[in-house]
Formats: sequence, C-alpha cells, structure tokens
Amino acid sequence: MNLILVSQQDFIDTDIVLLTDRRFEHIRHIHQAQLGQSLSVALINDKIGTGVVLAIDDASVTLRLELTEQPPSALNLTLILALPRPKMLKRILQNVSALGVKDIYLINSYKVDKSYWSTPILQPPTAQAELQLGLEQAVDSHMPNIYLKKRFKPFVEDELSEIASNSRKLVAHPYQSAPCPRANHDKTTLVIGPEGGFIEYEIDKLQQLGFSSISLGHRILKVETAIAVAIAKLCVF
Amino acid sequence: MNLILVSQQDFIDTDIVLLTDRRFEHIRHIHQAQLGQSLSVALINDKIGTGVVLAIDDASVTLRLELTEQPPSALNLTLILALPRPKMLKRILQNVSALGVKDIYLINSYKVDKSYWSTPILQPPTAQAELQLGLEQAVDSHMPNIYLKKRFKPFVEDELSEIASNSRKLVAHPYQSAPCPRANHDKTTLVIGPEGGFIEYEIDKLQQLGFSSISLGHRILKVETAIAVAIAKLCVF
Repeated sequence: MNLILVSQQDFIDTDIVLLTDRRFEHIRHIHQAQLGQSLSVALINDKIGTGVVLAIDDASVTLRLELTEQPPSALNLTLILALPRPKMLKRILQNVSALGVKDIYLINSYKVDKSYWSTPILQPPTAQAELQLGLEQAVDSHMPNIYLKKRFKPFVEDELSEIASNSRKLVAHPYQSAPCPRANHDKTTLVIGPEGGFIEYEIDKLQQLGFSSISLGHRILKVETAIAVAIAKLCVF
Repeated sequence: MNLILVSQQDFIDTDIVLLTDRRFEHIRHIHQAQLGQSLSVALINDKIGTGVVLAIDDASVTLRLELTEQPPSALNLTLILALPRPKMLKRILQNVSALGVKDIYLINSYKVDKSYWSTPILQPPTAQAELQLGLEQAVDSHMPNIYLKKRFKPFVEDELSEIASNSRKLVAHPYQSAPCPRANHDKTTLVIGPEGGFIEYEIDKLQQLGFSSISLGHRILKVETAIAVAIAKLCVF
C-alpha cells in the first residue's frame, strides 16, 4: 500500500479522517506509524497529499489531511476484455487499475466459460476492492469503471462503435495480424480475447467496426501478461 | 500447457517418448487426447513439432515425435533482478520465461530481505519447473539460465561489466531518470530493483558501470508488472 485511500465516509471533521479497517492495520503494523508522522493519502476520485497522524491506538488511527496534488493522468486507453477465469480476474483488475486504465469492459466470447459470470469477484464491492488495491499500489486516486457485457453480439453491434469512436481500434489477435503499432498519445480502444482466442465470427464482427488485428509476438502470453505488454507498447507513460 | 516439453530421459526409442507424469495427466484429462491425435511437442533446448498419440491408457501416453521447427528467437535482453519476495518469485520466473528472457541474474540488494534467499523456489528443480511452465505457455523449448548472486558489490564490481558488455545498460529507477527508450533489436541489459527500490549507493555503483536510469511512468508498478512493461517497451517482438 503506497497510498492510503480514504472516502467521504471516513471524515469526522473537515480535514480529519478516522480509520479502523485494513488501512488502520496497515498504518499500525506495516508503516508502524508514530504520532506526527506524515503518510501518503488521497481521497478517492480527488486529490493526493499527506495525512499526519494525530492519534493512533489499538483500534484506530486519526489523520489530518492536506490534499494538494492531482492524481497521475489516466491512460488514454479503453480496455475491452473477454472475461478471464476468476483465478486470474482478481489480479488482472488490480494490474489494470495500477496501469491507469479507467474504463474496463468485461465482455462475453464463445470461449468464455459461462460459469465465470457467476464469480463473486464481479460483485461490485469485491471488484471495487481489487481496483482499489491497484490504485494503492500505483499511487492514484481515480477509481476505474467496470462494465459487464454478458452478450457479445449486442455489445459489439450496439455499443462498441460509440465507445471506440475517434480512437485507434485494435484487437490483440495472433492470426492475420500486423505488428503492434508504436506508443503514442492517441485515444486507443484495445480488445483482448479469452484464453484460446476469439473465434473467427467474433474477429469478423470486430473488423467490421474497423478494429485491426495486432500481434504481441510469436509467444503465447497469459492474458494478464498480454494486457501489460500491449498497454506498454501502445501507450506513452 | 500449449506445448508438451520432453527431455532425453523420456525417450524409449529413437523418436518415441513415454510420459507418465503431469504431462500425461494433462494430455489425458485436458486435451482428452485420442489415438492418432497430434499434439504440439518439443524437446528441451531443441526443436518443436508434433507428437502423435501411439497409445494411451490410465497410466501413460506414448507419442511418436516429429520435431522440425526452431523455437522462437530469444529476447536479446539479459535481466538483472533484485531477488523478489518468494510469493512473487514463482510467477515472475514463469512470466520472464514466457516472455523469452534466457539469462536471469537474481541479485542481492539492501532492500532484499535476507530470508528470501532460503526459499525452496530457488532450488534448481523448483526453479526449473517454474521456468518450464513459462516455456509451455509461450511455446518455446529453450530453457533460460538462472544465476544467483548473493552479494551485490562483488557481482557489480567483478561480473556485471562483462555480462553487460556491448549492450544498452539500463536500470529501471523512478528518480533522476530519463523516459524509457524505444524498442529496438540491440542487446540490452536491464536491471530492476527490489520493492522500495535500490538505495543511492547501489544506483551509484550501477551508474559507474554506465547504466542509465529509466522511468516506467508516474505509477509505482509491482515488480512483476514492471518487468513485463519494461521488456515490452525495450524489445521488438
């Protein structure tokens, strides 16, 4: 936790928060914070700054906040991701959040096992908690949005065109693909398929909307690694 | 397992292997392979091709191999990595292997906890098994080398100069750093520090050998993510 994230509910006075949960545990046992110590703190979806320890005991910590800095700028990239296996999903949400992606569409695909959609990780409190871990890692306060799209065809036909308007439209796909283009500041919409890849019908649908297939090299990467590699290759940061 | 990796000990005839371990389990239960089916197979440190199922029962599978293709070319990058926490080390070995790194130096640093050096993951059979999982993922047969360097100063003073000769010498370090250079085919030596970063003394030592500090952006990434991002930004693939 490189950043303590607080929300409006934590405030007990204009600039004072009281924490009792895992953030308190972290401040107490990992930072081993002392009275007067200054910690890195941010208000969710707001500014970043410091929190000075006003009081700390076995149950809570009280911090006076001074939040002055803007969070790092968001990646100019929207991620459209075939819903990964639950085991990988948690880590992917954390990593994508840490990398600065702010709009994450989790979509269905032929090779997405139906059971994946019932994982508790997709429940808002759990998903938000994973995204928050990513922000705490990366020192960012701006919470990403997750959108669940359980039907491929209506999503691609009715929504994707608008979402991807005025952007580089790319789908990571190992077949009939061009090399990954260079990083730039352009708005980008990046689609990443399931393990086993998109089926031809799905690639056709995406190509009809103007998506180009790009390759991430000769090696087959895990979805998690492919996301980090693609973002690093496409975005300037 | 996108590739079945076999070794010399698996051969029972010139071009025939008998498998009884987790590879057999995978072929039996995940591939659900039938007689005559062709699977993707490679001999470790040798060629890639197919293995046709000659026999399969509840205990073993016999494959006739035809290995004709060279493995994908190695990344032209040597990774020098401060030994990560054991919990992260397994996944990092897998990922680095999948990405095509062939020389991995795990080194000490002031912020590497001494206890990390006694993890069983560093024992050759376990480390090799993790690297092999990466090759099986990426469809590569060329096993990476791991070198353990438990003392920072002698390693940097006596060995690193030779290891990094005629290469781009880069250390991922968030302070006083230049933006990450563009991907090219040049030989590269990439140093990545521990969580919490290298101390000034260590950075000084690296700079004395000609290593330049590069930034991976404003966000603090987990070591695992930082490795994938740096490799993607630096290497053409």
